[in-house]
Amino acid sequence: MDTRRTFIKQGSLLGVAGIINPLEIFAQPKLKETSKEKTKWSDGSRMVVSISMQFESGGQPENAESPFPQNLEAGYKDLPAETWYQYGYKEGIPRMLDNWDKLGIKVTSHMVGTAVLKNPDLAKEVVDRGHEAAAHGMNWSSQYNLSYEDEKKFIKDGAEAIKKTTGFNPVGYNANWLRRGENTLDILQELGFKYHIDDLSRDEPFIIQVKNKDFVVVPYTLRCNDILLIEGKSFSTDQFFNQVKAEFDQLYEESEFKKRQLSISFHDRIGGSPQMVKTAYDLVRYIQKHKGVSFKRKDEIAEMTLFDKLTIKD
Amino acid sequence: MDTRRTFIKQGSLLGVAGIINPLEIFAQPKLKETSKEKTKWSDGSRMVVSISMQFESGGQPENAESPFPQNLEAGYKDLPAETWYQYGYKEGIPRMLDNWDKLGIKVTSHMVGTAVLKNPDLAKEVVDRGHEAAAHGMNWSSQYNLSYEDEKKFIKDGAEAIKKTTGFNPVGYNANWLRRGENTLDILQELGFKYHIDDLSRDEPFIIQVKNKDFVVVPYTLRCNDILLIEGKSFSTDQFFNQVKAEFDQLYEESEFKKRQLSISFHDRIGGSPQMVKTAYDLVRYIQKHKGVSFKRKDEIAEMTLFDKLTIKD
Amino acid sequence: MDTRRTFIKQGSLLGVAGIINPLEIFAQPKLKETSKEKTKWSDGSRMVVSISMQFESGGQPENAESPFPQNLEAGYKDLPAETWYQYGYKEGIPRMLDNWDKLGIKVTSHMVGTAVLKNPDLAKEVVDRGHEAAAHGMNWSSQYNLSYEDEKKFIKDGAEAIKKTTGFNPVGYNANWLRRGENTLDILQELGFKYHIDDLSRDEPFIIQVKNKDFVVVPYTLRCNDILLIEGKSFSTDQFFNQVKAEFDQLYEESEFKKRQLSISFHDRIGGSPQMVKTAYDLVRYIQKHKGVSFKRKDEIAEMTLFDKLTIKD
Amino acid sequence: MDTRRTFIKQGSLLGVAGIINPLEIFAQPKLKETSKEKTKWSDGSRMVVSISMQFESGGQPENAESPFPQNLEAGYKDLPAETWYQYGYKEGIPRMLDNWDKLGIKVTSHMVGTAVLKNPDLAKEVVDRGHEAAAHGMNWSSQYNLSYEDEKKFIKDGAEAIKKTTGFNPVGYNANWLRRGENTLDILQELGFKYHIDDLSRDEPFIIQVKNKDFVVVPYTLRCNDILLIEGKSFSTDQFFNQVKAEFDQLYEESEFKKRQLSISFHDRIGGSPQMVKTAYDLVRYIQKHKGVSFKRKDEIAEMTLFDKLTIKD
Repeated sequence: MDTRRTFIKQGSLLGVAGIINPLEIFAQPKLKETSKEKTKWSDGSRMVVSISMQFESGGQPENAESPFPQNLEAGYKDLPAETWYQYGYKEGIPRMLDNWDKLGIKVTSHMVGTAVLKNPDLAKEVVDRGHEAAAHGMNWSSQYNLSYEDEKKFIKDGAEAIKKTTGFNPVGYNANWLRRGENTLDILQELGFKYHIDDLSRDEPFIIQVKNKDFVVVPYTLRCNDILLIEGKSFSTDQFFNQVKAEFDQLYEESEFKKRQLSISFHDRIGGSPQMVKTAYDLVRYIQKHKGVSFKRKDEIAEMTLFDKLTIKD
Repeated sequence: MDTRRTFIKQGSLLGVAGIINPLEIFAQPKLKETSKEKTKWSDGSRMVVSISMQFESGGQPENAESPFPQNLEAGYKDLPAETWYQYGYKEGIPRMLDNWDKLGIKVTSHMVGTAVLKNPDLAKEVVDRGHEAAAHGMNWSSQYNLSYEDEKKFIKDGAEAIKKTTGFNPVGYNANWLRRGENTLDILQELGFKYHIDDLSRDEPFIIQVKNKDFVVVPYTLRCNDILLIEGKSFSTDQFFNQVKAEFDQLYEESEFKKRQLSISFHDRIGGSPQMVKTAYDLVRYIQKHKGVSFKRKDEIAEMTLFDKLTIKD
Repeated sequence: MDTRRTFIKQGSLLGVAGIINPLEIFAQPKLKETSKEKTKWSDGSRMVVSISMQFESGGQPENAESPFPQNLEAGYKDLPAETWYQYGYKEGIPRMLDNWDKLGIKVTSHMVGTAVLKNPDLAKEVVDRGHEAAAHGMNWSSQYNLSYEDEKKFIKDGAEAIKKTTGFNPVGYNANWLRRGENTLDILQELGFKYHIDDLSRDEPFIIQVKNKDFVVVPYTLRCNDILLIEGKSFSTDQFFNQVKAEFDQLYEESEFKKRQLSISFHDRIGGSPQMVKTAYDLVRYIQKHKGVSFKRKDEIAEMTLFDKLTIKD
Repeated sequence: MDTRRTFIKQGSLLGVAGIINPLEIFAQPKLKETSKEKTKWSDGSRMVVSISMQFESGGQPENAESPFPQNLEAGYKDLPAETWYQYGYKEGIPRMLDNWDKLGIKVTSHMVGTAVLKNPDLAKEVVDRGHEAAAHGMNWSSQYNLSYEDEKKFIKDGAEAIKKTTGFNPVGYNANWLRRGENTLDILQELGFKYHIDDLSRDEPFIIQVKNKDFVVVPYTLRCNDILLIEGKSFSTDQFFNQVKAEFDQLYEESEFKKRQLSISFHDRIGGSPQMVKTAYDLVRYIQKHKGVSFKRKDEIAEMTLFDKLTIKD
């Protein structure tokens, strides 16, 4: 914030003087270089991009919401909707895994416990190929409305399913539809988690105090999230491309003097479609052309955030 | 899946070695050529595209859902909505038939029994021009909630209407809004059908066992389906073009080493509009520029799928 | 239809022979020229485009639907929504009138009786500038649910308001949301109307028998209608442009051998916005670059349709 | 209006003569130059663009509507939705402020009283950087349904919160969702306000009589408003760009002979996202390339409108 305020004060003075065009100031940023820190990330990155790959299909409740008309008579199974979800693990995750390899990047996979148990080999493959497994609750259901003990069990069971299946001990958390309750962060701290993502308030990670200890928030996104294609029913892949590209362009410019993170999210049965994987490929390739941008798993981002704080304190 | 897993294991080893960039591996696929089968379709196609042309208008129930506001007072007929449906057979199917001829492709037409009886000459013309007639139920209504016998009659009557009218004996099936019930596949097997399409789980056809006999699933699509233009109310034809193009681009790349099928769907009163026929024309022309892609009727795809299995068994 | 069928039969034969590529046939249409009539419109036009300009604002009922949230407490007036409607006559119609002049075209204006009485000078100006005034009911309300006599009065009063105000005697009719009732056509015939537009079934005008006399249907459109921008809430002007352009491209190609009409519709408070008028301008300019296309008022189209029939009879 | 009518009469005469093509008239506007006033704004601007930056986040009621599914169980807080709102003041306003500086323009910020009290430093910074603070009610709630005295207090308290916090005395008003009541304008006049924006009826400011004194209306917009991205759920930033660009293009052309104003609106938590700030930047840069366009705060527009009237009276 300091950098911004400094800039403001200068701008105001100049404005009062009425002589120097603010646009010229912008065109000559070198004059103020000494008051700005060029690189904000401890690993030397100018900017960080974090991709989520939601591992949820197979764990959905019976007759879960889908693109099919929600008018099924009571007492029947929504059989085609089930096949829409199956696509997530039969095509979606495998295709995305190939795409990340092709692009040479690692992502964070938020895994629902029941989805992991349904497809343990695929879950393990995600981890074996170098991606982070993060917890996403034991079931595909709300947790904000559970008692403290029930919620703790809900979180712990999900994490253990991941650990047992993939060998990866999750340190990050994502609640169903981001809806954590009043106790969630305390429970996560107790269980040894290092970060959660259920926060949309910033374009950079930050540290909060939970039970008097540091806890990292790695912000998530709704607008760079493939859920738009389902929720809006008329968001198309080219709109998604253009929108995320604009998001990156702005953050990249800001990242010269500010710590900036871009979060992008894909769900197995949506982001795993050919059209979305192609779109993700084009987006990542576009981003990779920019100097100083690195793709990070969210556990890496959390670590860097904690490390940066320690460094700053020195 | 084997090919993918082989690739994964190699990738992991290389990743551990930390020397070879995964992108370089991708750029030199010839090294692994021996472990990959180049062509997956028995007719030599690299990839198959299957188009559906839904023959439904005229068979809709009174005051069926339409783009008009759904606020008609009880006791009245929705006269303009009826003309919206009439467009399907007066302009839609004839225009699409001309388009397929122009493009030199054959498609699969899922026909509602009552729609066939309403416009028998047009239904026959579809078949006379070389397209496949597939069954789509006797009426435009749900079947998942029928008794075994009622559903069997529902399916059989629809198939017989097609057979009697067009001379074509349907071997493929599509349920209303894809909503089959628990008995549907058994009934289809009993009645001699060879495949159904009410499954979104894969980008390639596959064989399942129904009553201990092979039955083919030729997967369908919601995202490359013109129903998007009606359901979403704000999906435009250029969005449709871009989205299906992206879908093809990805599947085509994958098709070098994998059996891939692209499914596209058009409904008489929606996909038969001038704007959508132009869009379909542009899409097919774009796809036809790619080597090794063939457009197939779904009965041909089912046949090839069964043949491939036999070949693989040898 | 004859032309199409002839083509089909040829196509089938060729298909059986299996020698000639259907695409080559298409590339050499001159061979079949003798069996096709090149021009289908009596005035020599290859294709006709008809634009509607709905004159409705000011005639809407209190608290009529608008883009504002529909959650107003009972007993209050929706004041900002009223200004949204005022835009229709304060900016929308005047801007569109200037645009039509600039483009050198005449359109058909469907006028609600109460809207005409609210802004008589503007209604007269529409006619004075060469456009057609068509009737659109006395009030902005449903008529399909009225008794025969009430509906007759409803239609007649609206037509008389137009006649008295503008001097133009309307011969065309458009019902609220196209929803005519079972008696509407009979009443229109009795009152001396020559055509109605509440039909979406064709891309060309046609004649029906009403009370044993000819009555013309000049088909309307929902998909090339600016109402999409309001109904869908997320249809943008560039989508509208692309969609109508695709519609024209296809119809223009068909128009070489077939009577084709493109209908486009604008509403005062929607299509009269700067962004839509710019879009309409670009669309019309694009269309005007194509040889043989003429822009016609719907009364002219109805006249030509009746004349063509007489000519054909000869 | 005179100019338009004069043009019309000429057009009609020419039309009757049938000799001169209206398009030629348009191509030679110099002939009529004497009857047109070239510049309509008192400061010499050809056209004025006014941007709003809604300062609302932090002032929203508990569990206010957000992009999250509106299905929260009663008795719980919507915690992720709160972070969505926090984005407005943590990232949105600061980013937009930097953008306006970069672009060298000043905007009008409609501020909810409770939002100002929640983030007084940020509110002051808006004013310190040269922007206008306008009133937007004490709370984020309806006022059309309040009694005269309650509404007066509601408006006054909000204005005083702004005055006390920023030092800026607001002269402009915007009601929640533009929904003023029957008493609102009287109250605003009593309290010394000079203009309000809750009117969509024109593309230029105008003067109305309130309690027998001049009061300015500076029209607002829904279609060039980032609320589209939330309300429609599938409006993307590129659609927004294209739509506002088309709006400007048309108004700029009209502005040669007519007083034209373009209004664009951004909300802290929506328009403050990177993708929208990038889009706003591109739009403003595009507009700035056009000669004679100036960006004005709405208080400046109101002043000019009053001054123009006085000038015209002379």
